[in-house]
Amino acid sequence: MPDFVRTVPPGDDRERLTCPDCGFVAYENPKVVVGSVVSEGGHILLCRRAIEPRRGFWTLPAGYMELAETVEEGARREAWEEARARIALEGVLAVYSIARIGQVQVIFRAGFETPGFEAGPESLEVRLFAWEEIPWGEIAFPSVHWALRHWRETADRPLGLPAMNPPEDPRGTSPMPRQARF
Amino acid sequence: MPDFVRTVPPGDDRERLTCPDCGFVAYENPKVVVGSVVSEGGHILLCRRAIEPRRGFWTLPAGYMELAETVEEGARREAWEEARARIALEGVLAVYSIARIGQVQVIFRAGFETPGFEAGPESLEVRLFAWEEIPWGEIAFPSVHWALRHWRETADRPLGLPAMNPPEDPRGTSPMPRQARF
Ligand SMILES: [Zn+2]
Ligand SMILES: [Zn+2]
Repeated sequence: MPDFVRTVPPGDDRERLTCPDCGFVAYENPKVVVGSVVSEGGHILLCRRAIEPRRGFWTLPAGYMELAETVEEGARREAWEEARARIALEGVLAVYSIARIGQVQVIFRAGFETPGFEAGPESLEVRLFAWEEIPWGEIAFPSVHWALRHWRETADRPLGLPAMNPPEDPRGTSPMPRQARF
Repeated sequence: MPDFVRTVPPGDDRERLTCPDCGFVAYENPKVVVGSVVSEGGHILLCRRAIEPRRGFWTLPAGYMELAETVEEGARREAWEEARARIALEGVLAVYSIARIGQVQVIFRAGFETPGFEAGPESLEVRLFAWEEIPWGEIAFPSVHWALRHWRETADRPLGLPAMNPPEDPRGTSPMPRQARF
């Protein structure tokens, strides 16, 4: 595959990655991540990542939305793929933008539809954590912190307006936590 | 540009569009549309489209999110591009999935940050409509109907949990309104 170059395609108004051989324009659109804070009895489901980036760190069941699905279907699919959990979505907990890497994250608040979970192929381990047990030093991404914090703030209330990026990082540009950059 | 073919790339688990000449894999991800229901004194800002699809029909100021921006920045940019309006976002009004065409729409409730608007290059005309004046027979997309309806239901209340797809179209698969299919 040849190296793509940055040019302004005819009719467009900004530079795009273009294949110099065949003219294919690789429009780089933001990608949608769908995921959930799944809880039961105040305990939260976290997955220890079996894949890079951030292998070995804990994350929410979440991943890239696929083409022909809804955000709800995507969030349920990811919970199944990563945690073998059948979940029931309650509503949107947060909508985060990670401008640094072109991501929009739609995070649901959810419970279990049927009991049980286990590690899927992309997880080393899946566990329910009490709030005090959460391994804050081994969380994979800043947005997992944000979602857990917002979940905690609103856990005993009906869902309302979803959280957006926190004031300290309105554009999602903060780097990965220092101790575990890859 | 050669015709792309559908094959399963190495290491992937489903078919993707691939260039047979250079091997480029065009991952087809859902695209994010960001937009707003902008109102003032109970009147709603609508734009008459100058471009296909649905040229001549009325829509919300909305469009595809660009790579390095947040959803908020995208919604404000689109209001400027299509309606030359500087808007102030209040919060997320709705999150819609249009699975049929691989779209996620994040729609805000908004007001004017500074007065004034006019047609941008992608609009034939921009107008504020009282609810009773909205040209329902000339609305561009089903999701514009959904957003206007949800705006109306919640217009006099603080924003709460955002609307998702309506029960009659949970996956966003309904075709365009009959009288104006293109
Ligand atoms: Zn090429
Ligand atoms: Zn090619």
